[in-house]
Amino acid sequence: MRKEELTIERRIRAIEGRLEIYNLIAGHPPSADTGSAAYAEAVFTADGVFDRGPDLSGAVGNKAIGANLQSAGHQAAIAGGLAHFTSLPHVTINGDTAVVISYLQILTPRKSGETIEVPNHGGSRGYHIHRVVTNRWDLVRTPSGWKIKRRTLRLVDGSEPARDILRGALPAA
Amino acid sequence: MRKEELTIERRIRAIEGRLEIYNLIAGHPPSADTGSAAYAEAVFTADGVFDRGPDLSGAVGNKAIGANLQSAGHQAAIAGGLAHFTSLPHVTINGDTAVVISYLQILTPRKSGETIEVPNHGGSRGYHIHRVVTNRWDLVRTPSGWKIKRRTLRLVDGSEPARDILRGALPAA
Amino acid sequence: MRKEELTIERRIRAIEGRLEIYNLIAGHPPSADTGSAAYAEAVFTADGVFDRGPDLSGAVGNKAIGANLQSAGHQAAIAGGLAHFTSLPHVTINGDTAVVISYLQILTPRKSGETIEVPNHGGSRGYHIHRVVTNRWDLVRTPSGWKIKRRTLRLVDGSEPARDILRGALPAA
Repeated sequence: MRKEELTIERRIRAIEGRLEIYNLIAGHPPSADTGSAAYAEAVFTADGVFDRGPDLSGAVGNKAIGANLQSAGHQAAIAGGLAHFTSLPHVTINGDTAVVISYLQILTPRKSGETIEVPNHGGSRGYHIHRVVTNRWDLVRTPSGWKIKRRTLRLVDGSEPARDILRGALPAA
Repeated sequence: MRKEELTIERRIRAIEGRLEIYNLIAGHPPSADTGSAAYAEAVFTADGVFDRGPDLSGAVGNKAIGANLQSAGHQAAIAGGLAHFTSLPHVTINGDTAVVISYLQILTPRKSGETIEVPNHGGSRGYHIHRVVTNRWDLVRTPSGWKIKRRTLRLVDGSEPARDILRGALPAA
Repeated sequence: MRKEELTIERRIRAIEGRLEIYNLIAGHPPSADTGSAAYAEAVFTADGVFDRGPDLSGAVGNKAIGANLQSAGHQAAIAGGLAHFTSLPHVTINGDTAVVISYLQILTPRKSGETIEVPNHGGSRGYHIHRVVTNRWDLVRTPSGWKIKRRTLRLVDGSEPARDILRGALPAA
């Protein structure tokens, strides 16, 4: 190929990588909310790390991360109604690695309280936003696509760790 | 054109389709929250289906789907303050068809309860999350762009139908 | 370059612009929630306008907009736990200008009320959705990338101004 074509190839490849990463992030909530291990096993590296901070259990290795979704506790959460809701992520690709910064809400239907009616939209007790977390996804490009090497999340509670995560999306001060 | 150019053309076309689909999904909340029929008429196929499940009314055909937004009930919901809020969608394109899986929150301002002050952000009674739903959008590519053949949504309430929708974004188990 | 290559170049450039704009929008919440002025200074034009409507203070000029994030009031909001949460935006590029329409939630942890337990996800008093706003971002392409010329936001409270913003994402009626 000529030089212009090489450049075009490189640019298209970067764009395709970016779109693949968007789907990787968008695929996480469906996996978490159905308790399917297949996504976790497919998208984490064999030595991938899932770090939820000091207060909740994490896991190491794509098999263990997938198994967590099938635990009795996680299945009970799903049975009560569970929705992981993701914001538009910020993506920085640097060759064969990438850093993604995103926010996530974890929602569940309220089991008590007043029912509110909205015209044309029925009645509802509303949803409880159980957790709002900031996420850092450290990705690597492998022969079988972009994979998660480490996912780190921290609770938005006014303390510093959640903000440290967010700084991964900011220009150097 | 030479072979490399054909391939490049095909790849760029796939990328452009993906970005067009993102705008199609992002255009839905502004349409729903203003009660504009124009979006619905432009983006659903003439025989398009809008399926909100067994408990809420649906519609068949782009004209009927648009008309629903102008019903007295929907206009009353808008007058109370209505926000459809969409997550990052998961998109799978397969030639001239595509499947999009997304989450949606429907929010409205609370009309009673305590007012909370947040520094630099005024006071507010907060918002009621009326519904959280999972969505499957079955799309087709037409000479005038990507269109919605069927939109199916199910309430996140712990029951199976909402999870069935989500499985459309997962790799085969 | 030959004609096909020019067209390819133009199409790839449009795609790259679109993805750059997604990151620009996704970079806003991390900046707002850490109080970093660097993002605001980098992405607003020197004469950029930040318009929050009649009830909250705005600013003119990228330096002033950045300084607002470092005000005592904004820092107090951050200390209480603050999350700006963005939907998938709708993007319309027209040569060297672009219009982006998006929704934003502003969330903060509840400081009182009942603690709810969710299996495998700990206990939480939940989050208060303080504001839901519609946003219009008027962008211009500069030699150093896409910049914000004006950001206008309006509260979703049932009144017309929030809907006026949303119409920027709709086809002409």
